[in-house]
Amino acid sequence: MTDTKKLIEPRLPRGFEDRLPGDIAAVDQMIARIRAVYERYGFDSVETPLFEYTEALGKFLPDTDRPNAGVFSLLDDDEQWLSLRYDLTAPLARYFAQNYDRLPKPFRSYRAGYVFRNEKPGPGRFRQFMQFDADTVGAAGPEADAEMCMMMADTMDALGLAGKYVVKVNNRKVLDGVLAALGLAGEAHAQTRLTVLRALDKLDRLGVAGVRELLGVQRIDESGAVVPGAGLKEELIRFALAYSALAVEEGDDWTEQPLLRLAREGGSNEDIVARWRSYFAAEHVPTEGFAELESIAALVSAAGYGTDRIRIDPSVVRGLEYYTGAVFEVELTFPVTNEKGQQVVFGSVGGGGRYDGLVSRFRPEPTPATGFSIGVSRLAQALKLTGNLAGEAPTGPVVVLVMDRDQTARYQAMVAELRQAGIRAEMYLGSSGMNAQMKYANRRNAPAVVIEGSQEREQGVVTIKDMIAGAEAAKAFTDNAEMRAARPAQFNAPRDGLVAAVRRVLAAEGVE
Amino acid sequence: MTDTKKLIEPRLPRGFEDRLPGDIAAVDQMIARIRAVYERYGFDSVETPLFEYTEALGKFLPDTDRPNAGVFSLLDDDEQWLSLRYDLTAPLARYFAQNYDRLPKPFRSYRAGYVFRNEKPGPGRFRQFMQFDADTVGAAGPEADAEMCMMMADTMDALGLAGKYVVKVNNRKVLDGVLAALGLAGEAHAQTRLTVLRALDKLDRLGVAGVRELLGVQRIDESGAVVPGAGLKEELIRFALAYSALAVEEGDDWTEQPLLRLAREGGSNEDIVARWRSYFAAEHVPTEGFAELESIAALVSAAGYGTDRIRIDPSVVRGLEYYTGAVFEVELTFPVTNEKGQQVVFGSVGGGGRYDGLVSRFRPEPTPATGFSIGVSRLAQALKLTGNLAGEAPTGPVVVLVMDRDQTARYQAMVAELRQAGIRAEMYLGSSGMNAQMKYANRRNAPAVVIEGSQEREQGVVTIKDMIAGAEAAKAFTDNAEMRAARPAQFNAPRDGLVAAVRRVLAAEGVE
Repeated sequence: MTDTKKLIEPRLPRGFEDRLPGDIAAVDQMIARIRAVYERYGFDSVETPLFEYTEALGKFLPDTDRPNAGVFSLLDDDEQWLSLRYDLTAPLARYFAQNYDRLPKPFRSYRAGYVFRNEKPGPGRFRQFMQFDADTVGAAGPEADAEMCMMMADTMDALGLAGKYVVKVNNRKVLDGVLAALGLAGEAHAQTRLTVLRALDKLDRLGVAGVRELLGVQRIDESGAVVPGAGLKEELIRFALAYSALAVEEGDDWTEQPLLRLAREGGSNEDIVARWRSYFAAEHVPTEGFAELESIAALVSAAGYGTDRIRIDPSVVRGLEYYTGAVFEVELTFPVTNEKGQQVVFGSVGGGGRYDGLVSRFRPEPTPATGFSIGVSRLAQALKLTGNLAGEAPTGPVVVLVMDRDQTARYQAMVAELRQAGIRAEMYLGSSGMNAQMKYANRRNAPAVVIEGSQEREQGVVTIKDMIAGAEAAKAFTDNAEMRAARPAQFNAPRDGLVAAVRRVLAAEGVE
Repeated sequence: MTDTKKLIEPRLPRGFEDRLPGDIAAVDQMIARIRAVYERYGFDSVETPLFEYTEALGKFLPDTDRPNAGVFSLLDDDEQWLSLRYDLTAPLARYFAQNYDRLPKPFRSYRAGYVFRNEKPGPGRFRQFMQFDADTVGAAGPEADAEMCMMMADTMDALGLAGKYVVKVNNRKVLDGVLAALGLAGEAHAQTRLTVLRALDKLDRLGVAGVRELLGVQRIDESGAVVPGAGLKEELIRFALAYSALAVEEGDDWTEQPLLRLAREGGSNEDIVARWRSYFAAEHVPTEGFAELESIAALVSAAGYGTDRIRIDPSVVRGLEYYTGAVFEVELTFPVTNEKGQQVVFGSVGGGGRYDGLVSRFRPEPTPATGFSIGVSRLAQALKLTGNLAGEAPTGPVVVLVMDRDQTARYQAMVAELRQAGIRAEMYLGSSGMNAQMKYANRRNAPAVVIEGSQEREQGVVTIKDMIAGAEAAKAFTDNAEMRAARPAQFNAPRDGLVAAVRRVLAAEGVE
């Protein structure tokens, strides 16, 4: 390297983030708690690699209507296309199909891991993020869907969110029936149906006005890009919006829609389904979806889950194409203030549903499946807001200062003693003087600093600075003699009593 | 989907693997133990994303001399090249440089994560694998290198490998001096020096004959590909081989090389460096490398680490170009049988060294750094071999059978009761009969099965099968009446005593 070397600018790629100790510890802790619930439910861990063959993943992204949407793909040297997984469901389908003969059926499994979206990044919208999924493959009945809902409810309880969440349940077959009632039945309207579902699913992000645009001709997003809409007529737009209970705003004239009573009149889950079914009887909505909802209602109620925890709710849509039956969403119901200063509920932290066609792409036999996916960072954010996730990085280390550069072996030995005693400790490793070393210790949140200059060495002692007591003393303008006597900010200890003296300081600080 | 649908073949991409519960649990447990040591040493976690800008990673792969070597890269939609990280060092350099002002200096950090190599896969050679790294950035002195070595030694002890490892230390400056003595000094021979170092580093994989070829004209690998060699003359090849203590085989005539006494005559680390230095004085090897080795020897010895744990060893090379000073390797010394049926030591599970130039690519000021990387699956494999890693997947769940399909809500409620009591439990979710359900329970390693048919229901009881006692009884040809009386393979319990009865069975089996 020459003096005039050209420097590379150190930059994080667009849409990616570095994670710091507090966040890492918090997410690890949260994942451990979720895992304990999943294992109690009989789910086993399995982990697939980040790459899959592109053809195995299929094209089931929720946002293929956006510009730049899609997956990260590359051509391998044997001319086969590889893609980074964009969710944890498609790889599981491949894994199950590939290991079909070996695996128990039904197969319950879970996994946490990074997924990638080759999309336009934005605030809080990353191109690499973590999901935590659970799936049951090979079980066709509503029992498997009901179990998913109960497991999610128990997970939220285990995370300390009791009373602050509801697992909402709907059924894609019912939604398809509603869309048929809108005149959107048949293969010819498949794309329009998907566009309507995706539009309704974006209500919490875009608001009623945004969804209205997506149901109509087009929407122009923040970046100026034109997103084509579903092209519905005004009366159908109003019906579709009214259908989604969330869309109701004070004064809107569609609040009179009878459908909305579903979400308001309360009662049991069975009551909700019965009212809903009776409303739609005239519209020829297939009864299968309602029957499945009734089964789920009966199962969760028999297992003791009330509508405060698991609720049939017609507003749940889910934007993914591959759902074929039950769809779920966990909504956190506690209020937060949004960027416009409005009080809103925290909202969805995960969702899922039944996807009976996904594994069948690989296998001749029908292979029904149902699953649930948690958005890890969003749930972690919620837990931090509610005080349910300490996620504390470890406390700072005891720092042994280097007073004489030719004595580093002595300082190193002190640090080794402290570490062997289980105390987090460091020797200062730079070449700076006393002031810079104390600054370093402060930056590291060191609870204590150990000093051995030539004078101490001659006397066979070390000086120990209690950094927290020191900070307290510095804050107090009046000389609090009593406090200083009880816990001096700095004292000498015999060299061979180093560990015991440091332990006393840490105990006084509540560190150990 | 039609009846004649074309199926996609479910395939794992070449060079990637799925991970199963036992392996996942084992690696998690191992990582937790390593992390505890690193945190005691004052290291903090930090995690970077899997992608970096290609220019930020640089080209420091150990194997760029292989065909198909390299990184996974793709062109982003803003015409910038992105690459998947191939190690955890280059991203850390970017992270440190980008957050320079905010971070404490020196900066100690650690991280575990997947790295990717776009290479030809082979047995045990994957394109995605996990590394666990620790680095100290901003510390120039041998104290930081010595600390790395001690931390690795303590890590091996914490993993239960006391007495079964040695951390070997060498210095790239000394190696460069040796290469200069071979006539390979100066910029003109830079590539040859690297080729020689990489060849010597492959001794445990290729054996003496393979390395000899790589030092000579060329080597033809298993696939028939031609790998160009360093082009050394025969006497230099012999010197280079002799230099590497590992190369000595019974009867080889180069065993008389005085250099080899270094690794054989024992004594303290200081003794080893002194002998080595005296041998090389005549060859004009720069003294700086030896001085650094002497400092490391003094520091580890003052901290109480003997040569049985940390040893200066001239055979350590490391194949990476970017090392500028100390280089280390953790070798596991216990014997294993290799694929040729020979007894060999298990070998290297990690290594590292000082890389003073890597961060400086981003920053105007000199930014020395030193680090260590553990190969996670290889270390986990060693721990399994030595019985130091249980890594057990959770025991199987209690399975509640579905005897009557119209009673699933009742069975579901039983499972919910068991789970709420903290017992791992499942309801059978398929549509198969009794035999298939029992087979499923066996496949799941269920410790117990709960049965409620119509008869039991009328009597208000459930039948509980103790699957382990049942298996024992099936094995015993003679009817062991006593054992069966003490612990029947199957018994009835009142329905409202379900949890207590299952607990008794699990306790007898030692599951809970």
